[in-house]
Amino acid sequence: MEVIQSVQELRLKLDESKYTLNEKNSTDRKMIGFIPTMGFLHAGHASLLQQAREECDIVVLSIFVNPLQFGPNEDFEVYPRDTERDLIMAREAGIDYVFMPAVLEMYPEPIKTIIQVSKLTDSLCGASRPGHFDGVATIVAKLLHIVEPDRVYFGMKDAQQVAVITQMIKDLHMRAIVVPCAIVRDEDGLAMSSRNVYLAPEERKQALVLSQALQKVNLWLENNGEIASLEQYLKAFIQTAPIAEIDYVKALSYPSLTEIDHIKDLKFGERLIVALAVKFGRTRLIDNTLIEVNPERSE
Amino acid sequence: MEVIQSVQELRLKLDESKYTLNEKNSTDRKMIGFIPTMGFLHAGHASLLQQAREECDIVVLSIFVNPLQFGPNEDFEVYPRDTERDLIMAREAGIDYVFMPAVLEMYPEPIKTIIQVSKLTDSLCGASRPGHFDGVATIVAKLLHIVEPDRVYFGMKDAQQVAVITQMIKDLHMRAIVVPCAIVRDEDGLAMSSRNVYLAPEERKQALVLSQALQKVNLWLENNGEIASLEQYLKAFIQTAPIAEIDYVKALSYPSLTEIDHIKDLKFGERLIVALAVKFGRTRLIDNTLIEVNPERSE
Repeated sequence: MEVIQSVQELRLKLDESKYTLNEKNSTDRKMIGFIPTMGFLHAGHASLLQQAREECDIVVLSIFVNPLQFGPNEDFEVYPRDTERDLIMAREAGIDYVFMPAVLEMYPEPIKTIIQVSKLTDSLCGASRPGHFDGVATIVAKLLHIVEPDRVYFGMKDAQQVAVITQMIKDLHMRAIVVPCAIVRDEDGLAMSSRNVYLAPEERKQALVLSQALQKVNLWLENNGEIASLEQYLKAFIQTAPIAEIDYVKALSYPSLTEIDHIKDLKFGERLIVALAVKFGRTRLIDNTLIEVNPERSE
Repeated sequence: MEVIQSVQELRLKLDESKYTLNEKNSTDRKMIGFIPTMGFLHAGHASLLQQAREECDIVVLSIFVNPLQFGPNEDFEVYPRDTERDLIMAREAGIDYVFMPAVLEMYPEPIKTIIQVSKLTDSLCGASRPGHFDGVATIVAKLLHIVEPDRVYFGMKDAQQVAVITQMIKDLHMRAIVVPCAIVRDEDGLAMSSRNVYLAPEERKQALVLSQALQKVNLWLENNGEIASLEQYLKAFIQTAPIAEIDYVKALSYPSLTEIDHIKDLKFGERLIVALAVKFGRTRLIDNTLIEVNPERSE
């Protein structure tokens, strides 16, 4: 495993290792898998690393806390970092290259170019965190241009991020394929997140209400397909946790992230996403579940 | 020469031809040169094709009138097209691949992703044509992702476009190198443009005032380095052509496109651009000249 700080050096290494001769003396292009992260890796990240390792010839992990995607009052400065532990996890996962650029390496001067993905960013975290997805799309585009991967891995906890990046790649004819990976949960159901480390014990306990709420979605929809009443029900359920402060509780068509009134209004090929953002103390957590439409149910 | 309509097919062809074995049985990557155009090629384009042919192994020309960069009241519908003549010129220039996608090939559904380059687009054509450079940056990014060139060629008649694309490529860590090519002029001085075909004989005659004005810049600056008075002088000169309708006459630091008061205020490494946009009848023409700062002059 090599740890690389410089864009130039990573490019050189990848260029050198990307092409090999096969037995017929013609060129084989090795498949590059890429996992962009902000570090402080947990079991959710580990599942991405493992899947990339299984599917690709060369696996690149990036660790970069991207200032561009944090709002002025958000947690950029205090975002948890533990490089030593991250590198141990990366080594155990068999990663080939860990790219850990400094902020000045990625932004040598103030950036003038921003990538905006409209529509998909109007709701959910896009509404709560103005500019967040511009920052995400822009840094992911930068990293994709540097690494030039065949496959790029993202966790579905950030389902809106997956929708936004998939749209950007399609709209801009970028080459990478997005591989969305299932949410990994702690034994008690809490979705893995680097920000869970912020939670005090009582906050963590009350935060379990999120995954518990999502577990009730399927049963509720069997009796009532109205989206408004589902959202109302979930809000009431979440508010049984006294310190829970709801940012949003929304059910939308996925991945278009469009509003629907009833589960049976889902467009062909889309699923229902039920997405939550809730603060426990000063920590904002997100979670979601995706519901396949059962044709019988939608009749 | 192959003419290709499909993104998929162009990618396949380029992938197949990009890598070859050298004598040492290792892989050589061929250098790809790319000239993105809107077709209706003239001698200015021909100079780009020729330079690319001299410098690169594989040369790709794209012809695509991009609806995204035209405003609602601009000339997208009537923009001149002559595919047959374009293909003859491409063949004569020794182009390998001509990429001529339909609008639906480039925009199979309404695009949600837009690339915005700020600051550089506030002035000149960016001010006169809102959204124009978003459309330019976005289509160029799409084409760069499809062609993956080493070198991309642009004419300096669109000097602001060169500044914007160079900034985008740097900010997003794209791989291509921008090669700016000198303005090509007709014998009488008129800068080559596909839109010159719109000009009636009298309009074309009066349009010569643009290149004549630009020829006076150097001499003027030797006597007076004040930018405001240079602009005033040029405006008065252009208005000696009775039908000339000035959109802008601006002198800025290039490529940052920042305002300066005096020629001696130019930042190190920058040049002065004197840029004009003037309507003759219904046809809007642009032209410009770049002035190297003479250290003696700026003292």
